[in-house]
Amino acid sequence: MTSSTALLTDRYELTMLGAALADGTADRRCVFEVFTRRLPHGRRYGVLAGTGRVLEALADFRFGDEELSWLEREDVVDQRTLAFLADYRFTGSMTGYAEGEIFFPHSPVLTVEGTFAEAVLLETLVLSVLNYDSAIASAASRMTSAAIGRPVLEMGARRAHEQAAVAAARAAAVAGFAGTSNLEAGRRYGIPTIGTAAHAFTLLHDDEETAFAAQVASAGPGTTLLVDTYDVKRGVERAVAAAGTGLGAVRLDSGDLGVLAQEVRAQLDGLGARDTKIVVTSDLDEYAIAALAVAPVDSYGVGTSLVTGSGAPTCGMVYKLVAREGADGRLAPVAKASTQKTSVGGRKTAARRLDPATGRAVAEVVVTGDDAAVTAWQPGAGLRGLVVPLVVDGVVQPGWTGAEGVAAATVRHAASRDELPRGARRLSADEAALTTETRTV
Amino acid sequence: MTSSTALLTDRYELTMLGAALADGTADRRCVFEVFTRRLPHGRRYGVLAGTGRVLEALADFRFGDEELSWLEREDVVDQRTLAFLADYRFTGSMTGYAEGEIFFPHSPVLTVEGTFAEAVLLETLVLSVLNYDSAIASAASRMTSAAIGRPVLEMGARRAHEQAAVAAARAAAVAGFAGTSNLEAGRRYGIPTIGTAAHAFTLLHDDEETAFAAQVASAGPGTTLLVDTYDVKRGVERAVAAAGTGLGAVRLDSGDLGVLAQEVRAQLDGLGARDTKIVVTSDLDEYAIAALAVAPVDSYGVGTSLVTGSGAPTCGMVYKLVAREGADGRLAPVAKASTQKTSVGGRKTAARRLDPATGRAVAEVVVTGDDAAVTAWQPGAGLRGLVVPLVVDGVVQPGWTGAEGVAAATVRHAASRDELPRGARRLSADEAALTTETRTV
Repeated sequence: MTSSTALLTDRYELTMLGAALADGTADRRCVFEVFTRRLPHGRRYGVLAGTGRVLEALADFRFGDEELSWLEREDVVDQRTLAFLADYRFTGSMTGYAEGEIFFPHSPVLTVEGTFAEAVLLETLVLSVLNYDSAIASAASRMTSAAIGRPVLEMGARRAHEQAAVAAARAAAVAGFAGTSNLEAGRRYGIPTIGTAAHAFTLLHDDEETAFAAQVASAGPGTTLLVDTYDVKRGVERAVAAAGTGLGAVRLDSGDLGVLAQEVRAQLDGLGARDTKIVVTSDLDEYAIAALAVAPVDSYGVGTSLVTGSGAPTCGMVYKLVAREGADGRLAPVAKASTQKTSVGGRKTAARRLDPATGRAVAEVVVTGDDAAVTAWQPGAGLRGLVVPLVVDGVVQPGWTGAEGVAAATVRHAASRDELPRGARRLSADEAALTTETRTV
Repeated sequence: MTSSTALLTDRYELTMLGAALADGTADRRCVFEVFTRRLPHGRRYGVLAGTGRVLEALADFRFGDEELSWLEREDVVDQRTLAFLADYRFTGSMTGYAEGEIFFPHSPVLTVEGTFAEAVLLETLVLSVLNYDSAIASAASRMTSAAIGRPVLEMGARRAHEQAAVAAARAAAVAGFAGTSNLEAGRRYGIPTIGTAAHAFTLLHDDEETAFAAQVASAGPGTTLLVDTYDVKRGVERAVAAAGTGLGAVRLDSGDLGVLAQEVRAQLDGLGARDTKIVVTSDLDEYAIAALAVAPVDSYGVGTSLVTGSGAPTCGMVYKLVAREGADGRLAPVAKASTQKTSVGGRKTAARRLDPATGRAVAEVVVTGDDAAVTAWQPGAGLRGLVVPLVVDGVVQPGWTGAEGVAAATVRHAASRDELPRGARRLSADEAALTTETRTV
């Protein structure tokens, strides 16, 4: 298997390319825009994640011999198209919201500009990455918000496609998760990894005492012992007996976690293990985390609900042609006119309007109008510009990819969320926290 | 990036391995079982998918220099564990349900046997693959069932992680989808690929006539023209004008598809394009497909709801230690005893009990008891055995992987679904279509 990302693409993109190369429209300059028409039901904001991964995948979007020979053998495209693909490099530009930024319906989170040929090919890959990663980050942000400062840890790899799991760990980190169980996410993106033992380790041993002794001998008393394989009360006794009062943490993975945490805290304190922390796992989501706010819990491990977007496993982002060069050589806005899925044509940019007194966001401003005016538009007083350059003439700009990109996105998301109006972080179903205003220039 | 799958693993597996190597329990013979405690709400059966991908990933589960140096640098494990990982090869065995087979709660869909060290490492990867792929296949089977013979096409890549999308296309094929838009799925697994044009192609051109003419010139009159960019009625007129009455198909991607299909069918027939087919897309799921049963629709394209499991984006499969060699050298059943998540210890096998008169399934039979007796158990009259060898002493058995595995799983799923009791395929929420009986030997 090659590392090329070029076939992570819907066939119709190549079919369109073939027809456009044949009739001479392939070279028309085009502007594609990524946006969503709505947030998942009840959600108050979305979190953009995956931009760094899009830029990483762009570097591997090459049609090599393996890809070309398969396309030829399967008769997917003609010889002219194969020749174009062999030389394919994206030489256009991308601008967009910075990763970690909050978005709303119709926020222009990514704009791709280039010839039709070079820009249309990226549709599927760009959407796959942004739709999945943003779905996860949007759910993750609600979880870190509900945890009001307590660390939240990502443990969902087993409930997601094995590569999606790595992306989920990355998106969770962007939204403030403190660590992940996923080793590959640690390696690729520098996210701290965590993990000590499962029930299998206790069951492997002849009894719980032996298992705990083995873990402490190997990992030191600062480890986390999983105490609910048999009986939690006995488990806690044995854990402190094995590690001493310097035991790092105990983990609870079943039962009524609120009640159990109270009991275990009291038991640990009674045993003198006052600094031993309590980690809870077991089908947590943002609501369960919120419900545990008054329980003596030190950190939360989240799995299934994180990697499945807590009820919203994908965003509805689309990649739409909004402007293209016509027969007259001029860039003109275009938009589909069918009844239900209307779009607004033309290039856009955006800013967040801030209350000058509090510094808090009051509206999302989407700027549209004359192409040159939109391109030249600068946010004035009381506005924070949202659109930044990501790729300039085919060159990926520095700072967005790899571990560096994730770290910057994490800081950015925290700031963007803090800027939202008070009440924007409520978990119960409500409208988007900001309304979107259109400004024509 | 290497092609190794070894770090698609939760850190705690390596931590447990390190402790078990230190205390001598790493070599204990173990039996791990993959099963689910329940089906998603209202679902009547699950479809096992991903087995072939597990076996493919197993071949790449190697700790190379890149993986080992990262683990060492991050101090994830000690030197003894690094040495073990450097030589890691799975030398154990796997048995399980054949891919495409239908499963129910507590069906032992996969059993992994080996030393603790070699088997515990595979937990995350095995679950990631089976949980995602089976979630997709389980949803896909309801869709192909609802389509009552009309082709269903997979078009969801843009709504899933880019690699998950390939697995989703594969799982959909197992459950009877006729094709996919995903080129990489075509290349890897030999699934037929489909796709012609998006709205962007029409918008790229100065008018719809020019766009249709270009597509027909490039792809021939047998192509599928997307007719709802502007006005469907005009679009259909222009489509037949461009391609003639031999036009392959028109695609409808918005609006009230049932009404629209009636109108478009009448219009096509009136224009003499009686053989031109109608393809519908636009947020279809199994319920929308069922609702279109009486509409003159020839095939369905499904995206979002397929790749997100139509409300159930993951299975709840777990990987549990059910038996292990004790200090006495004998294999003994083990099970966690916490309140909510009880498991049944011991190795299992399974069969489907059939009605001798009709040949239809009447119950799922899970066989448990004495380890040697379970291993030796053979299904008698009226039972169809479900458990097959997948890996024997580290050697992947032929026929399960690649395109060959997908093709066989597709045939198998159709047969297994046909064997279910009448009524098992109803879409409305209900109990599992078969009850699970436990037989002790």
